[in-house]
Amino acid sequence: MTGATPGELDAYLEKQRAPVEAALERAVSALAQGLSEDVRRAAGHGVTTGGKRLRPVLCLVSYRACGGSLTDAAYDLAASVELIHAYSLMHDDLPCMDDADLRRGRPTTHRESGEDATMRAGAALIPAAALQALAACEALGCDREKSVAVTRTLLEASGAGGMVGGQWLDLLGEGKALGPEELDGLHRLKTGALLKAALAMGALAAGATPSVQACLREYGAAIGLAFQIVDDILDATQSVETLGKNPSDATLDKSTYVSLYGLYEARARADQQVSRALSALSAAGLEAPMLSALARYVVQREK
Amino acid sequence: MTGATPGELDAYLEKQRAPVEAALERAVSALAQGLSEDVRRAAGHGVTTGGKRLRPVLCLVSYRACGGSLTDAAYDLAASVELIHAYSLMHDDLPCMDDADLRRGRPTTHRESGEDATMRAGAALIPAAALQALAACEALGCDREKSVAVTRTLLEASGAGGMVGGQWLDLLGEGKALGPEELDGLHRLKTGALLKAALAMGALAAGATPSVQACLREYGAAIGLAFQIVDDILDATQSVETLGKNPSDATLDKSTYVSLYGLYEARARADQQVSRALSALSAAGLEAPMLSALARYVVQREK
Repeated sequence: MTGATPGELDAYLEKQRAPVEAALERAVSALAQGLSEDVRRAAGHGVTTGGKRLRPVLCLVSYRACGGSLTDAAYDLAASVELIHAYSLMHDDLPCMDDADLRRGRPTTHRESGEDATMRAGAALIPAAALQALAACEALGCDREKSVAVTRTLLEASGAGGMVGGQWLDLLGEGKALGPEELDGLHRLKTGALLKAALAMGALAAGATPSVQACLREYGAAIGLAFQIVDDILDATQSVETLGKNPSDATLDKSTYVSLYGLYEARARADQQVSRALSALSAAGLEAPMLSALARYVVQREK
Repeated sequence: MTGATPGELDAYLEKQRAPVEAALERAVSALAQGLSEDVRRAAGHGVTTGGKRLRPVLCLVSYRACGGSLTDAAYDLAASVELIHAYSLMHDDLPCMDDADLRRGRPTTHRESGEDATMRAGAALIPAAALQALAACEALGCDREKSVAVTRTLLEASGAGGMVGGQWLDLLGEGKALGPEELDGLHRLKTGALLKAALAMGALAAGATPSVQACLREYGAAIGLAFQIVDDILDATQSVETLGKNPSDATLDKSTYVSLYGLYEARARADQQVSRALSALSAAGLEAPMLSALARYVVQREK
């Protein structure tokens, strides 16, 4: 599997940006009905404040690779994953959690809209995301069985078995040296759960076979881990200006892949995960040049 | 429709207590897997800390009245509604919201387990509740169509169109005189949405006709409003010891039914809502003595 070139991937990501953002805008508008000005503003800020949109793109590429067509409903499905990601960032940044001032080069949502509005907007995104996934599946013509499987996948990744589980492990890691297995376990939940869900949701909605679904989950787990290792490397080596956020992990004395393995070995481990991701794609037998390019992108990105 | 006597209702509520609490314990145990000690403790505290369990009882009575049998799965379905109620109380009590110290005569969850664990446990309850409703419907033998309708009802009541919408209106009411329509609108969302959802979920799962469902929603809206009016009356007239919480609304200078109408007129309005609830039950043609007794209980309760 050769995959797309970095240039082709860039062009693809650029092409996906507008329809993904449009789907997110639709989601925020739908959510806004019944919300006060401040909570609406917080939701809008949290959801539409940029970022790489890696999760919706993974969902779209997976859906496409498994035979789906990229209609508005496919973008709505992809956006539902990003709503959960946005909720997790909004809550993570709150004073009682990471107390972060900056995210993607801009003030965090609670610095703009206050703690209470941010907390409530974040919580409102969870049911909104599930309802949106359900509606998008229906619009895509999925039968009830598939729609339920897709929505269940998103809900499972959003809760105790996924991100919330990962968050506690993250806090547990502060001021305490985690072992390699604990650190992998942490990131499998924290970052990996939603990346895997994004891929699985695309595959499920497109009617992929269980074995293809399993390969895509394996791919998701691998790039999730690679992504996190690279995050730790960037946190240790880049400036605030480049990252667009404060490199908080060192300040908080968290265990990271860099503190555990050193830069060189951490980089090697990220590369191993990319190989694992590419093997999973080969095993799936999918024609998915963007997925292999994305796996490489994850370790080559500079912010 | 004569309904059950207060004594019969008490006996019924007492009989339901153990299986409802058991279902909540099951839910917390299932949720606990993958959560840290502190978040698990917060979830357990928030969910199993007593209360009237009005929402699960309404779901059960509605399910029963529409022809369902009270199996463990029915209690699991009923408990899913209470998980959402628990999340809303846990978040409402946080320092950046109401900053409450007491709830049901005990320290609030964040006073016991900290803000971060409470925020995360609360958020984890949302997807857990939706997954539990889905699984309970399947265990009850509902087809996909019904399972999705039940889960959608719970999700809709949990988000922007329901409780989160009501929360902002609540904060909006602080320090500002709301008009009668605004106050009704507030409580329709804040309390009413989940009470209505509890009744609708029971009816949907049992396969009630749309007209019976509509009557039960109307009943739910009416007792939700009556419940809130009585809450305001109790806040204005009862001691902390009786209520088990600080009567916070007066302190926060919120608009209440008592501040708007005075005690006498507020009581009359609560009674009107009970009549409306009983009419809705008659229109449904249901044999549901506990539902009519519950409507009366809502205005006769003393805490």
